[in-house]
Amino acid sequence: MKAILFDGLLKFTDIYPEPEPQENEALIRVNMAGICNTDIEIMKGYMGFKGVIGHEFVGMVEKINGYDQKLLGKKVVGDINCSCGKCDFCIKGMKTHCPERKTLGISNKDGAFAQYITLPVVNLYEVPEHVTDEEAVFTEPLAAAFEILEQVHVMPTDNVLIMGDGKLGMLCAFALRLTQAGLTLAGRHDAKLSIASAHGIGTAHIDTLLLRSKCYDIVVEATGSPEGIELALQLVKPRGKIVLKTTAAAGKKINLAPVVIDEIQVIGSRCGPFEPALRAVSAGLIDVKSLVTAVYRPEQAEVAFEKARESTSLKVLIDFR
Amino acid sequence: MKAILFDGLLKFTDIYPEPEPQENEALIRVNMAGICNTDIEIMKGYMGFKGVIGHEFVGMVEKINGYDQKLLGKKVVGDINCSCGKCDFCIKGMKTHCPERKTLGISNKDGAFAQYITLPVVNLYEVPEHVTDEEAVFTEPLAAAFEILEQVHVMPTDNVLIMGDGKLGMLCAFALRLTQAGLTLAGRHDAKLSIASAHGIGTAHIDTLLLRSKCYDIVVEATGSPEGIELALQLVKPRGKIVLKTTAAAGKKINLAPVVIDEIQVIGSRCGPFEPALRAVSAGLIDVKSLVTAVYRPEQAEVAFEKARESTSLKVLIDFR
Repeated sequence: MKAILFDGLLKFTDIYPEPEPQENEALIRVNMAGICNTDIEIMKGYMGFKGVIGHEFVGMVEKINGYDQKLLGKKVVGDINCSCGKCDFCIKGMKTHCPERKTLGISNKDGAFAQYITLPVVNLYEVPEHVTDEEAVFTEPLAAAFEILEQVHVMPTDNVLIMGDGKLGMLCAFALRLTQAGLTLAGRHDAKLSIASAHGIGTAHIDTLLLRSKCYDIVVEATGSPEGIELALQLVKPRGKIVLKTTAAAGKKINLAPVVIDEIQVIGSRCGPFEPALRAVSAGLIDVKSLVTAVYRPEQAEVAFEKARESTSLKVLIDFR
Repeated sequence: MKAILFDGLLKFTDIYPEPEPQENEALIRVNMAGICNTDIEIMKGYMGFKGVIGHEFVGMVEKINGYDQKLLGKKVVGDINCSCGKCDFCIKGMKTHCPERKTLGISNKDGAFAQYITLPVVNLYEVPEHVTDEEAVFTEPLAAAFEILEQVHVMPTDNVLIMGDGKLGMLCAFALRLTQAGLTLAGRHDAKLSIASAHGIGTAHIDTLLLRSKCYDIVVEATGSPEGIELALQLVKPRGKIVLKTTAAAGKKINLAPVVIDEIQVIGSRCGPFEPALRAVSAGLIDVKSLVTAVYRPEQAEVAFEKARESTSLKVLIDFR
């Protein structure tokens, strides 16, 4: 089958072996897949992953190895964490933190930049008929944005700042806009900020924030740059919350004294719930299609990744149909 | 009056002018005062404070400049944050975060290592008759320990680790012991750990923790050393909480990637509520007296601070009676 591999270098191949669904797994034919910044980080060595990359997808269930066949022939999206189902974390409903987990295209499991993938049937969510492939492929990153609402009580009277106008920051803004909180998306790219503006989201150039101090109840750090958290610490109110959506602060020298003095909460946030993300897209409340920069064929993998790396790009999709 | 000053050097004087209570303030004759690590940090330059240091005290109300005289002649302890009462934070009940606040012996207000201090009457709490001066003087730091319970829901089934067997770590252990959570206090000093053991608290030498990983629901960082938070990140479970009780992590190079991957919450924690602290001591549920290392006269300020700095010391008190 066709697949995009990373083995130290990015490679397209059309002779990769098709995966076989294990017990209680489905075989899914991928319709579309999206390039995430995590894919770009993997190509710099993140997680030490080698194999088929990609974890944002929408596809059709072609085969199910198991008793429950009700998703056969359906269009699905899928949770990327394949958990053991038996450990304390799985039992407590925290399967995205199972220490034995394999993660689609990120850790110990071939990913979604391929014509076929396998996933446990319990990971799959049926896509409503009127939701297109271009929309459904955003479910996984949009779920990560909804994770903020699982972790933090965002009140309608809160002042919320989202730092970073990349694809993740934009999706966080789209999800948090639903709370009716006072919302500002800060970034460096006029074209991206205008997309947010067009959706009724307040915007600011990130440099104008340097003059402000302690004025947001909640700050979502999604810049992907190590300076983000220091600016967030300056901008959050005492007893406010900073949500970290990227691992980019890693290794940066950060002065955490303000966290204690102002009793700030710093909350790490990763994968999120698929159902509310699908509901919001299905209800037409989140216009994910406005974030598509370009669509490529799998054979154009190198060009697609080059495009995804451009600072003016938002989501780049790979079309396997 | 007698007072212990810091003006670049620590100094005892017996000719410091007595303070005058402003409107709605009380004049308090100090019975006893306690040395906190913050006092020691101030002598290294923290907050750039100069003046009478000290903020842990118990004393007698000798005069009230205001209508409400009901605390006159009573023994009191007092909240060290003097707030404006008018700003958004004060109105929302967050007076310890008032941006205009003066803080007793820490910022813009002479402190408690003196025969007399003034504080707003609203800051004062009457000490029950059977609570001694030696016990009541612990109210402020014990309140800081109770702040953890204001911020974090500690469940009886949680596994909780407190890192640091200094006076703050010990008080945190005494307060959190009341939750009946599984509790371990980790430190480096056998004599201090035995005090905790004698109170039914599980203990561990901090080096033995290096072999453990992701096993605590909540970790309280009270070591006062910059390595504390990195060890805390190793020891906390996914979706667990780290409470930072000291500003010591300041400026240390910290890798925050685990915060995102494991969705950890890092919660800064500072001053706390006086009433539950007084209730717990009054009810005999917390044996603060076991933490007294030595008591000195104000004239012995230098010796007292030398003692307080010794790594084997817990609380050093100054007796103004």
